Amino acid sequence: MPGKEKTLNDLFLHTLKDVYYAEKQILKALPKMAKAAESEELKKAFETHREETEGQIERLEEVFKILGKQARGVQCEAINGIIEEGKEVMEDFAESEALDAGILAAAQAVEHYEITRYGTLKTWASELGMPDAAKLLDQNLQEERKTDKLLTQMAEARINTKAA
Amino acid sequence: MPGKEKTLNDLFLHTLKDVYYAEKQILKALPKMAKAAESEELKKAFETHREETEGQIERLEEVFKILGKQARGVQCEAINGIIEEGKEVMEDFAESEALDAGILAAAQAVEHYEITRYGTLKTWASELGMPDAAKLLDQNLQEERKTDKLLTQMAEARINTKAA
Repeated sequence: MPGKEKTLNDLFLHTLKDVYYAEKQILKALPKMAKAAESEELKKAFETHREETEGQIERLEEVFKILGKQARGVQCEAINGIIEEGKEVMEDFAESEALDAGILAAAQAVEHYEITRYGTLKTWASELGMPDAAKLLDQNLQEERKTDKLLTQMAEARINTKAA
Repeated sequence: MPGKEKTLNDLFLHTLKDVYYAEKQILKALPKMAKAAESEELKKAFETHREETEGQIERLEEVFKILGKQARGVQCEAINGIIEEGKEVMEDFAESEALDAGILAAAQAVEHYEITRYGTLKTWASELGMPDAAKLLDQNLQEERKTDKLLTQMAEARINTKAA
């Protein structure tokens, strides 16, 4: 289809596939991050978020169903780059005192990508008259925001521990 | 230097280089986004943010000075991926009714990457006992948050205009 005939519906479906691919990559990355993390609290946070991510993928599959489309991902260069950077930090700072700080920062970059995508998708779902889809996307958005907040608290707690 | 001897200082410098590279890429991308956007309001927002980005790069150069290091960027796969995705949307949806919605979403993904990085850097600067650096990074953080808020308002206004 030529670009000029495309609609917001097409953009919505494209972005839904993008975030579906991103969540699947994150599902694979989380156990590696949990394994690499030194703090038990951080390991546990990644394990919890892994379970949440499974639920988020199911919600996305429901949104595909609402659209009458098959759930399919599409290469997302953004999440690939974000995960790749996190992997580099885990390698470069392995066994160092800064490892957990680096892993936390990488995880927050992932969360922020999801937050922006879910915010956008939720707005478009409302615009396109799909309140049920908007609700599912909002549930994912709220979970990502909660996770980002938890990671921020953990990053700040690291400082307070050291200062004490 | 072997990974295990690295410190938070090294991680801070690495991430500062990452965001310095990212801002320079964004500086190049913004005029292209302004040119592609259909709405005058969106064009203007990108032009304003281009000027802000120049100021942000100068602040980052001050932080390098505080560290006693030369300002240098380092390849950042994350921003490369985010910008690449934005470019694809601009091409795929050229001349379509969804073009500005796609450009807005791409710009918000950029903002969120910067927000997460500046949040992290500011926290680390405090931890490392560099209040002046933390202040400069916080100024960039607040500008990015303001820009993201403006873009959100513009995305929502698109809907209200259509509904009217």
